[in-house]
Amino acid sequence: MAAQGRVRVAVVGAGIRGSMFARALQQNPDAELVAVCEPVERTRAAAAAALGVPVCADVEELLTRFADELTAVVVATPDFAHRDVAVRCAEAGLHLLVEKPLATTVEDAEAITLASERAGVHAVVGFENRWNERFAEVRAQLAGGGQGRVVHQVANLNDTVFVPTQMLSWAGASSPAWFLMPHTLDLTMWLSDAVPVDVFARGVKRVLPGRGVPTWDVVTASFAMSDGSVVVLNSSWVLPTSMPSVFDFRYEVHTDTTSYTVDISPSGVTRYDAERASWLQFGVHERAGRLRGVPIDMVDDFVALLGGADLDLPGARHGLLVTRSIVAVHESLETGRPVPIGSGPAGPDAADAAPADPQSIPA
Amino acid sequence: MAAQGRVRVAVVGAGIRGSMFARALQQNPDAELVAVCEPVERTRAAAAAALGVPVCADVEELLTRFADELTAVVVATPDFAHRDVAVRCAEAGLHLLVEKPLATTVEDAEAITLASERAGVHAVVGFENRWNERFAEVRAQLAGGGQGRVVHQVANLNDTVFVPTQMLSWAGASSPAWFLMPHTLDLTMWLSDAVPVDVFARGVKRVLPGRGVPTWDVVTASFAMSDGSVVVLNSSWVLPTSMPSVFDFRYEVHTDTTSYTVDISPSGVTRYDAERASWLQFGVHERAGRLRGVPIDMVDDFVALLGGADLDLPGARHGLLVTRSIVAVHESLETGRPVPIGSGPAGPDAADAAPADPQSIPA
Amino acid sequence: MAAQGRVRVAVVGAGIRGSMFARALQQNPDAELVAVCEPVERTRAAAAAALGVPVCADVEELLTRFADELTAVVVATPDFAHRDVAVRCAEAGLHLLVEKPLATTVEDAEAITLASERAGVHAVVGFENRWNERFAEVRAQLAGGGQGRVVHQVANLNDTVFVPTQMLSWAGASSPAWFLMPHTLDLTMWLSDAVPVDVFARGVKRVLPGRGVPTWDVVTASFAMSDGSVVVLNSSWVLPTSMPSVFDFRYEVHTDTTSYTVDISPSGVTRYDAERASWLQFGVHERAGRLRGVPIDMVDDFVALLGGADLDLPGARHGLLVTRSIVAVHESLETGRPVPIGSGPAGPDAADAAPADPQSIPA
Amino acid sequence: MAAQGRVRVAVVGAGIRGSMFARALQQNPDAELVAVCEPVERTRAAAAAALGVPVCADVEELLTRFADELTAVVVATPDFAHRDVAVRCAEAGLHLLVEKPLATTVEDAEAITLASERAGVHAVVGFENRWNERFAEVRAQLAGGGQGRVVHQVANLNDTVFVPTQMLSWAGASSPAWFLMPHTLDLTMWLSDAVPVDVFARGVKRVLPGRGVPTWDVVTASFAMSDGSVVVLNSSWVLPTSMPSVFDFRYEVHTDTTSYTVDISPSGVTRYDAERASWLQFGVHERAGRLRGVPIDMVDDFVALLGGADLDLPGARHGLLVTRSIVAVHESLETGRPVPIGSGPAGPDAADAAPADPQSIPA
Repeated sequence: MAAQGRVRVAVVGAGIRGSMFARALQQNPDAELVAVCEPVERTRAAAAAALGVPVCADVEELLTRFADELTAVVVATPDFAHRDVAVRCAEAGLHLLVEKPLATTVEDAEAITLASERAGVHAVVGFENRWNERFAEVRAQLAGGGQGRVVHQVANLNDTVFVPTQMLSWAGASSPAWFLMPHTLDLTMWLSDAVPVDVFARGVKRVLPGRGVPTWDVVTASFAMSDGSVVVLNSSWVLPTSMPSVFDFRYEVHTDTTSYTVDISPSGVTRYDAERASWLQFGVHERAGRLRGVPIDMVDDFVALLGGADLDLPGARHGLLVTRSIVAVHESLETGRPVPIGSGPAGPDAADAAPADPQSIPA
Repeated sequence: MAAQGRVRVAVVGAGIRGSMFARALQQNPDAELVAVCEPVERTRAAAAAALGVPVCADVEELLTRFADELTAVVVATPDFAHRDVAVRCAEAGLHLLVEKPLATTVEDAEAITLASERAGVHAVVGFENRWNERFAEVRAQLAGGGQGRVVHQVANLNDTVFVPTQMLSWAGASSPAWFLMPHTLDLTMWLSDAVPVDVFARGVKRVLPGRGVPTWDVVTASFAMSDGSVVVLNSSWVLPTSMPSVFDFRYEVHTDTTSYTVDISPSGVTRYDAERASWLQFGVHERAGRLRGVPIDMVDDFVALLGGADLDLPGARHGLLVTRSIVAVHESLETGRPVPIGSGPAGPDAADAAPADPQSIPA
Repeated sequence: MAAQGRVRVAVVGAGIRGSMFARALQQNPDAELVAVCEPVERTRAAAAAALGVPVCADVEELLTRFADELTAVVVATPDFAHRDVAVRCAEAGLHLLVEKPLATTVEDAEAITLASERAGVHAVVGFENRWNERFAEVRAQLAGGGQGRVVHQVANLNDTVFVPTQMLSWAGASSPAWFLMPHTLDLTMWLSDAVPVDVFARGVKRVLPGRGVPTWDVVTASFAMSDGSVVVLNSSWVLPTSMPSVFDFRYEVHTDTTSYTVDISPSGVTRYDAERASWLQFGVHERAGRLRGVPIDMVDDFVALLGGADLDLPGARHGLLVTRSIVAVHESLETGRPVPIGSGPAGPDAADAAPADPQSIPA
Repeated sequence: MAAQGRVRVAVVGAGIRGSMFARALQQNPDAELVAVCEPVERTRAAAAAALGVPVCADVEELLTRFADELTAVVVATPDFAHRDVAVRCAEAGLHLLVEKPLATTVEDAEAITLASERAGVHAVVGFENRWNERFAEVRAQLAGGGQGRVVHQVANLNDTVFVPTQMLSWAGASSPAWFLMPHTLDLTMWLSDAVPVDVFARGVKRVLPGRGVPTWDVVTASFAMSDGSVVVLNSSWVLPTSMPSVFDFRYEVHTDTTSYTVDISPSGVTRYDAERASWLQFGVHERAGRLRGVPIDMVDDFVALLGGADLDLPGARHGLLVTRSIVAVHESLETGRPVPIGSGPAGPDAADAAPADPQSIPA
């Protein structure tokens, strides 16, 4: 692609993830990082220095200064702050790559979905585990046929208590279900080509509140899927910090004839020093000055998509359904009852619907 | 214990398990195997030859011939056939060791419970995993204090499809929940000292019916416990036969501060031959002509209990609660709703039962 | 066995192992613990209090007071101090159970072997891993035929640096080869029914000397076996203390057609607390007030042997060959050359040879 | 890099590996695949069709037609056939990427080394495990300091019997030492920055000869390293085919303070079907039509090196030392004695070779 053919992208949010996306764009020969948008002054200054591109304080400034030359934007703001950025940029005709989850309310997710659809822009949701070669191969085998139909899936994705108590400042406003289950739920859908239709969830809320973080310690959710299969998701936020990895990720998918078990946390390298045992992690790593790993591949595919590649990436409708499902998990946690998951997203007629009434949108 | 002080025991049911219990009694110096009862003539003849003790065709014959000299009976009939044997023997004043589950209906379990209580005999239920040193040590640590309170437990106990399609003739009348979950549910109660108060379950019923076994392929159940903790049990009956063990047993218990993961299937010895990989199993094994393993230890403790030892073995009330819980699992499977689990006494009929007053019987 | 028929045993050495053997004897209905012999006054007093049997300060006192009523003695003195006790007791007509290694010089091992042979007493050497059900089953399968002939074996038995620097006061006078390889070498011989004929060894001597323990950090030894197979033994004494077990024991045996891998360190239970990850260990554990585990089974078999049981236990000739082999390991470490291992032990005609010249003793 | 600035490369040998290297070059934007050279007509035709580039029957034709426009050549002929291709191309001024091992005789390896040095061309040897992120990270940590000095390393790299009996037609002319140990020996040198100075090896030669493949079943080699550390390499070619991977690769490196264990065979995904258990492998895999994996990264780095990048890739001197070491392994296998490994220059004949003065060539 000639330089003038490059995809021109801005990143909104310059935290750990946003900075990584910005670097990924800079190292992609088919992309150009145009600008970064970050409200916190110190973080903004650091991004400017590290990346050597213009920085803006907010999305309005970004659009005012760069809308004409931009093709797309990566939305890497905190989970609850996706809507305004995404809607505004979609309305400006920019393609979107939005971090998972698409949003943390159905209303927000619908608004982003409808805005992108009205504008006719791509809205890719960053369910990055699809770029993990392990899951991709299982998906390929299952989709290739001959492996039987999925009977049930069990996915454990947990964090040590370090994550909600030391790593995240906003854990109390989130939950292990919001932080972890979008990953595992997306995988169950992708591997089985089915959607969740009903969820029952339970949890415990005792340890983290006692440590000043008013959210669930652990959530377990049982989903009925549209193909008659069953999914169990378990996510804890209170595992001991002596675990060899800060996350504990184990996945099973069972069909009529075949079982796959996927262990993501152990990397193959265990290090024992005088203090502790740990599994070295290679999710994102640097080689010869370049970042590698699943989020980098995801960004590359987003760029390729915008360049015309025929890729099947998770879109806003899918992201909306995941958000609906996690909202339903929390509703079940509160009510103690199974909760149906409307799989009817904001549909085609919504394209011209103003104001959009999600209740009227057919599946 | 002098010979005349030995515990004199009969075994009812001379299948694989019954024969093993009979051998366990014969090798225990404090016990005497008096007779074996088995309705199937060929099996009965084999038992007579192998064990060298009198055999009876049914429990009436057993009681007629041996009631006066018996102290106890081991009930190793098929799951659905515990009630009559257990009640009749209890009424005859014999102590009971009943295979798990105590019964497969609440009515049967209540009948056995009340009969044993009226007769004032021990009714031990064979939840043999308590004799597995791994679980026993975890229990000892948790009960010893200082390990935090239990937050959640996840127990996977699965079988390969060999079990319902080739090993068991009566699988269609059972389910993975009846066959496997009594083990795991008992462990969750024992480790946490809590009882289940509510259950939600889902399952799939497609693969086994298609192979002529009209029962559930897989069941997942989510329990709310009396201490506020959460339990997830998963049991499949359709795992591939290429698994290195016919059963797949993984257990996790997480407290505020500590996690234990218990892997029962891998024994530490993997054998690779030209055909397959397998984990050698040592659950019951023979050494110098003597059987060893958890069911043998269980029988030995039953004998010791009858000899006056102060042992805390799982009794009929506990077995009744497990049966209630598994019945509730199936009710939830059918209704799609959470089902409360009555942890109360044996029920209305018991109210007029004299001398046993259910209100006075500790739960 | 009536009380007067019991095997009457004394234990020499009341350290951790000796005390355990004493308890094992006390709980064996066919044995009677007559006395314990221990030179260190405080340890002796503790043993007297804990065991409630007479204690002696040295083996002369033991023999003077109890020789007439003793059948056997367990030798649990430090490795280098086996000879005098064992020879004296054999000469007194007592059967011997000697901790492994039989001795740490060929001369000592020969002296014990010849003394026991002249006296016609059993001299069992405590290679306790033979009582580990995992190895016993592999041995049974290989000995049963149909599994091919052994091609090679690799055995890793390591300790964390805790063992030589904190647990053992006499580590500087020993080595990982003396402390660990007798176990693994014995297993390779037992599983293959072959004997070592030649050894080449290398090691490193840097870390432990730097910490004030003048011995080898790690030793690797390569053995040619009499059946043409090859054995590799690796033993380190400097592994990090963050390992989940104080020992690291992995074993492989490969035949023409079949491979067995045996992992002894992971018990199936991993415990994660705020500080560290650990594998709970069940090598010796207590149940209902009784000790269990491989050393207990070994003592029970020693008692059974003396009671007339037909058991194939490792004897002095075998212990002598192991000692010869480990001496050869150290000779190879020093010379940098392969060292032949005389498998010709002190033979039958040596019985009348005084003083015994090992060079003249035919194989 | 503009098209005219591209590195222009030919591949010699169009088997599995050569074809893969050719594809890697075609997908690298900084390289151009100019031609492929392959003597077997059918293979040559297939390569022409698959790759769409000119093909030649031998290296003379290649040089006659394309020497002027070539920058480099990848040598992917069988192990024993590297010398002539490499020397001829070096003499023509072409840079070399040679598959490991550099050669299978010291004479061949020296000839290639000297030819490349005289010509002043790069001669990179394809020790591809250095591009495995697991080993690269361990290397980075050890090289970064603070992890202690290496004490010992143990590397097991085995194949199932499928490899020598079904996959390779020329196994009888090779050995597990030639096929597998160059990988592991290279890693031990790279991780410790030390070189082997002496080796003792043993092996068994019974199973494969009995199956018509006249080579070693298993080889174990013990190396003294220049830094005083010890290395043990074990390589078998007769493991059972029921292993979940065709290769079994386990690596340990231990320092004063830290241990790393690296398990390469288990990928994190286990698949159980009706027939067997297997670990899915991702060593080389395809994503969006592009190859990925360690050999692809290696080729990319070779291209980058030729483009001027400052990369530290394994060169001919290193490849020569590995060849010397494996030759010494076989000499020890035959003689039963430890064999010193000359780490010096290319040898006496080289002394009079002008212009290259071996004394001036850095080891």
